Amino acid sequence: MSVTSPLGFEAAGMSAGLKPSGHPDLGLLIGQPGTTVAGLFTTNRVAAAPVHLTRASIAAGHGRAVIVNAGQANAATGARGDADARSVVVATAEALRMEPADVLACSTGVIGEPVHMEPLLEGVPILAGALTPGGGPDFARAIMTTDTVVKQASADAGVFRVGGCAKGVGMIAPHLATMLAFVTTDARVARHDLQRLANDQLKERFNALTVDGCTSTNDTVLLFASGAAPGVPAVTPDTPAWDELSVAIAEVGSSLAGQLIADGEGVSHVMLVDIAGASSERDARVVAKAVADSPLVKTAAFGGDPNPGRILQAVGASGVDVDAATIDIAIGGVHVVEGGTIPAAYFENDTLSSAARVAMKESEIHIEVSIGSGPGASRALGCDLSYDYVRINGEYTT
Amino acid sequence: MSVTSPLGFEAAGMSAGLKPSGHPDLGLLIGQPGTTVAGLFTTNRVAAAPVHLTRASIAAGHGRAVIVNAGQANAATGARGDADARSVVVATAEALRMEPADVLACSTGVIGEPVHMEPLLEGVPILAGALTPGGGPDFARAIMTTDTVVKQASADAGVFRVGGCAKGVGMIAPHLATMLAFVTTDARVARHDLQRLANDQLKERFNALTVDGCTSTNDTVLLFASGAAPGVPAVTPDTPAWDELSVAIAEVGSSLAGQLIADGEGVSHVMLVDIAGASSERDARVVAKAVADSPLVKTAAFGGDPNPGRILQAVGASGVDVDAATIDIAIGGVHVVEGGTIPAAYFENDTLSSAARVAMKESEIHIEVSIGSGPGASRALGCDLSYDYVRINGEYTT
Repeated sequence: MSVTSPLGFEAAGMSAGLKPSGHPDLGLLIGQPGTTVAGLFTTNRVAAAPVHLTRASIAAGHGRAVIVNAGQANAATGARGDADARSVVVATAEALRMEPADVLACSTGVIGEPVHMEPLLEGVPILAGALTPGGGPDFARAIMTTDTVVKQASADAGVFRVGGCAKGVGMIAPHLATMLAFVTTDARVARHDLQRLANDQLKERFNALTVDGCTSTNDTVLLFASGAAPGVPAVTPDTPAWDELSVAIAEVGSSLAGQLIADGEGVSHVMLVDIAGASSERDARVVAKAVADSPLVKTAAFGGDPNPGRILQAVGASGVDVDAATIDIAIGGVHVVEGGTIPAAYFENDTLSSAARVAMKESEIHIEVSIGSGPGASRALGCDLSYDYVRINGEYTT
Repeated sequence: MSVTSPLGFEAAGMSAGLKPSGHPDLGLLIGQPGTTVAGLFTTNRVAAAPVHLTRASIAAGHGRAVIVNAGQANAATGARGDADARSVVVATAEALRMEPADVLACSTGVIGEPVHMEPLLEGVPILAGALTPGGGPDFARAIMTTDTVVKQASADAGVFRVGGCAKGVGMIAPHLATMLAFVTTDARVARHDLQRLANDQLKERFNALTVDGCTSTNDTVLLFASGAAPGVPAVTPDTPAWDELSVAIAEVGSSLAGQLIADGEGVSHVMLVDIAGASSERDARVVAKAVADSPLVKTAAFGGDPNPGRILQAVGASGVDVDAATIDIAIGGVHVVEGGTIPAAYFENDTLSSAARVAMKESEIHIEVSIGSGPGASRALGCDLSYDYVRINGEYTT
């Protein structure tokens, strides 16, 4: 049930002293020699130094270990930030007797503040000495920032295991911490096939998350394959083993995404927004995000009032070319908009609006929107906008 | 200082009984025969019935009066909504002895709820009988929904006068009320020239407003020119009179936009976000809106903490192709990001961060962002995200 559940991985976590709180803040995960890796990265143009470094290493075919620090994001830190990220990787590689190119790096925490390099570099050899096959939970704890619970998941794929952990959804954390996720498997998968698994099974699952529409400078998802499962050949596309592995990776990704949204700060209701009937999956995704990110829909979810007009407004303003007359909306299965019209009954008697209100008070609110007869469908995972969100993000002063 | 300050206009307002509160809710504005009109409308694909009707009348070259009801938005009301809007226009035209095509209509209020037609149609003849050249303030009061103050403005343009009133910024109102604005002048301006004045002098001023990024189903701006100023020929482009009129219309538009944002519900700080150095004005506008709409920037404004990393994050995630190394950010003239980097001094001593914190506590927060050396510049008018926003929009239950 952790990132080291699959064979061929070791991990560790420690309190190096990067966080004022003294909580764990430095983690290390490593796969056995031959481990392959695939990555998904933030689309923010202001990407952090470790994102640039890790993306380049993976693109060059390297990477089987990752060092993660919490406390400082090493974003907007200029040339000093690049040098710091590089020093972290070199020190870790030395401690592990590996090539620096094989060490990837992630950071999460305060944007702009230089990384506290002294305690970090002192911690690296200690951390390397503490690596164990049971270290997954310690690693998962060390990457947390404002998370209130450790987020881990695992799944079986026939003879293979898949494990994972994540932190965030930091876009809502006081200092814009980050969504980081690490998924492992002991299947043997060639690098380009692994990237395909990451793209197909993980990308949309994490992209579907939205707490406040803010894309962090540091978001990273890494998928490692150790090949340590005994006596099994490499998994290749379009085989039964590939399909089993795909399902297990998707299951771990979905579990982690669900844990992330549920732990979003200030969240009292999760919203599942399903769009169907769009011209394309892209259009469906844009509309799903527009609904899930709408402050008016989010406050309605907080207040427990269905407000179907707000959902309609968000669909219409999404930028996607929608014919208003084709829009149907259901909340928890209760049809509140049909053919672009809110039934007059909604305002004239209580049966319909009461049923919708009950659905809107669930801890998981299911909003289904059909915008035509096209093949495009997509889901966004959102949450409400509460007093606590404003308190956490507004009252915080450095 | 009202929509009837220019010669050639009459207006009236009344309580017809559309609002449960009994407050004024029906307004009528009319220009003398020969009045021309130009319109700007919501881009929301779920546009309200009166928007469709008014847009069509203006496109066909008609319109010199407008009837406005508050209480029901007549959006998402289907065929019944179209018929209702038509009935309102026909009844008003009868009372005024005009062609129905010359009567425009706007609605603001609850989405989906059918318009309360009976009291409205009873009110129309009374309202028509109450029209006076001094009725501008009554009209301005009748179009309000959750506004706390009447919003009016006027300016002189040589021999001409320009007047205006507005309501909203309703995107933050409990039921997604609407931004409506009406601007008048007693200059004589041909229809296509008037549309050019609306596009050039009003469009960006109202588009720059953002309370929560939500575009209403009913947003409408109408610009009327009565030609009633005595003994003056039509104003045509590229003349001194045109330039004077342009400046006066822009002044009225800016004044109304400023009044709208300042009256946004729950707003305690207004943000002026100026983007410069973009490749195009469009890019600058996208970035300006991204910063002004970011929940993390908005909560930072509420809390009075500069958080430069949040502004950087919003710029980087805007979707515009920005080179991070070219980004400079100043808050109230205090440089908090230079070349994409937050100066280490920001975290190491108090002088810089204290100065930025003082600027962030102003009631008007000025955020300047340079994203390169291009010619594109734009301003967004935003506001903070407060407990009151969540209360107003979350605790409201129908």
